[in-house]
Amino acid sequence: MILAIGCAMVVSMRMPEDVQTRSGGRLVGGIEGGGTKFVCVIGRGPEDIVAEARIPTTTPGATLSQSVDFFRAESARRGSLAAIGVGCFGPVDLCEGSPTWGFITTTPKAGWEHTDVAGRLGKELGVPVAFDTDVNAAAIGEARWGAAQGLDTFVYLTVGTGIGGGGLLGGQPMHGLVHPEIGHMLLPHDRSLDPFPGVCPFHAGCLEGLASGPALLARWGQPAESLPPDHPAWALEARYLGLALANLVCTLSPQRIVLGGGVMEQTHLFPLIRKEVVALLNGYIRAREILEAIDAYIVPPGLGHRSGRLGALAMAQDRAGSD
Amino acid sequence: MILAIGCAMVVSMRMPEDVQTRSGGRLVGGIEGGGTKFVCVIGRGPEDIVAEARIPTTTPGATLSQSVDFFRAESARRGSLAAIGVGCFGPVDLCEGSPTWGFITTTPKAGWEHTDVAGRLGKELGVPVAFDTDVNAAAIGEARWGAAQGLDTFVYLTVGTGIGGGGLLGGQPMHGLVHPEIGHMLLPHDRSLDPFPGVCPFHAGCLEGLASGPALLARWGQPAESLPPDHPAWALEARYLGLALANLVCTLSPQRIVLGGGVMEQTHLFPLIRKEVVALLNGYIRAREILEAIDAYIVPPGLGHRSGRLGALAMAQDRAGSD
Repeated sequence: MILAIGCAMVVSMRMPEDVQTRSGGRLVGGIEGGGTKFVCVIGRGPEDIVAEARIPTTTPGATLSQSVDFFRAESARRGSLAAIGVGCFGPVDLCEGSPTWGFITTTPKAGWEHTDVAGRLGKELGVPVAFDTDVNAAAIGEARWGAAQGLDTFVYLTVGTGIGGGGLLGGQPMHGLVHPEIGHMLLPHDRSLDPFPGVCPFHAGCLEGLASGPALLARWGQPAESLPPDHPAWALEARYLGLALANLVCTLSPQRIVLGGGVMEQTHLFPLIRKEVVALLNGYIRAREILEAIDAYIVPPGLGHRSGRLGALAMAQDRAGSD
Repeated sequence: MILAIGCAMVVSMRMPEDVQTRSGGRLVGGIEGGGTKFVCVIGRGPEDIVAEARIPTTTPGATLSQSVDFFRAESARRGSLAAIGVGCFGPVDLCEGSPTWGFITTTPKAGWEHTDVAGRLGKELGVPVAFDTDVNAAAIGEARWGAAQGLDTFVYLTVGTGIGGGGLLGGQPMHGLVHPEIGHMLLPHDRSLDPFPGVCPFHAGCLEGLASGPALLARWGQPAESLPPDHPAWALEARYLGLALANLVCTLSPQRIVLGGGVMEQTHLFPLIRKEVVALLNGYIRAREILEAIDAYIVPPGLGHRSGRLGALAMAQDRAGSD
């Protein structure tokens, strides 16, 4: 029996030179813009971060002003920045040419609807700005320096307070009509085994509603990190994540899936999820990566919790290089 | 309330010149390689097909020989072909640089496993060959001349004997580890409402198992085309297709979804499916295209049943143009 072998190896041969070139060079800035805090960094790569600040996400005015102040003060001391990259919570407008490109659009986060993020930062700092979702930024970070080096089609999924996914498809960040909302994928939900209705106010039985940190808390009455590894919560969690990943394999055919976020810090979940994915696909996708090397196919982030901010730096490097 | 408007319009402004250039020019060949027949065409576009042949899919030796004979005989009379495009049933190897690029790989179709299709055609006909899945070819046809003109990220889903999907993501055909197998997405399946277990031998409750033509036949005891529009089969069919499309919106964020194949010739399905998708997404994806213009978002193919063969021609034009 001959199994298909995915495209990863072919692509990877082209990457090292690229990576080396891009990780050196001029100083750039990155922002990981989350619903709780904005992490701002200045540097040239994972081993060369020269300044970092954590700014609480309060109002757009305050948070963006403080971010601008940080970059201004640091670049006055360290030299000008060639560009800034922003990986932002959303939904956001990624549509080049749109009058609201670089805006947070219809977010449920109070006060942040229709906020111009990229335009304001670019104007106040006088630098080019690259802008994408938080999860695409994390994916770009993993592709540049982490667990997805050499791949052109892969998914980064974060499982935490919410569940969101990004990635590269054919070497480009996942955009489209808006951008993916992988956390809202509708999953098989057997109410006789799991009567919990889900926490998503929009969808009964979506991934985020059934498997996010708040779903674990609401279903079991205690936070994920306090549930022991032998608690039945984890088999069910692995089941839902396995269903979602099997569906991602069928729809996106990723060369690898990187799983990050707070819930995935329970690393005992990884083998459970891998087993579910193999069982659910049931031999249909005949790729060596899935049938023989699943441990290298579903993996934790190579950059730990820094994928987003480092990805924002990588985006800034690309933006600077394209001028 | 401001709704996001997708990226389609921005992209479409770049297309007409391209389309015009590519649809004229040199004579090319296309093959829609299906499990039942190979449809071979020669021409320059939808309005300029100069020859066509239907060759039964028997053994690889016989079917490919007859295809070669057709192209040889016709190009002797009409002039040489600049390239040939092939949209092929699969699974296939699309990995550039792979020693088995252009092969059918692990297909269940007897006798066709590990068949070199693209290499053999190229060698025997002495022309460059473009090769992709049947559904990606159909998507490329719809992008060039059909219902997806001007879009760079969309899905083409065929619902018939099997269910398969392809499309463009950021302007490139959907590839990846292997290629998508959208028909095998796992769906919510309420056995109390629909005790039918599905026809897929690999997966309980996958899209193809629950909603393909053979699934309709097995569940209701009569073929899809004989079920009247008011039969309860159609509400259930629309439910499963709606679930699948909602998940495609969440994972791929397509600018449009084109639904082709034999089952979709029951055009009364379209409004039912649109209604399901809007209800299932429940306002979460705040794009005008979904909330206000769903009739133009989920559409039949612009090229009818010819998407695949015309897409193969378009692929050949691109291949010829890239030399």
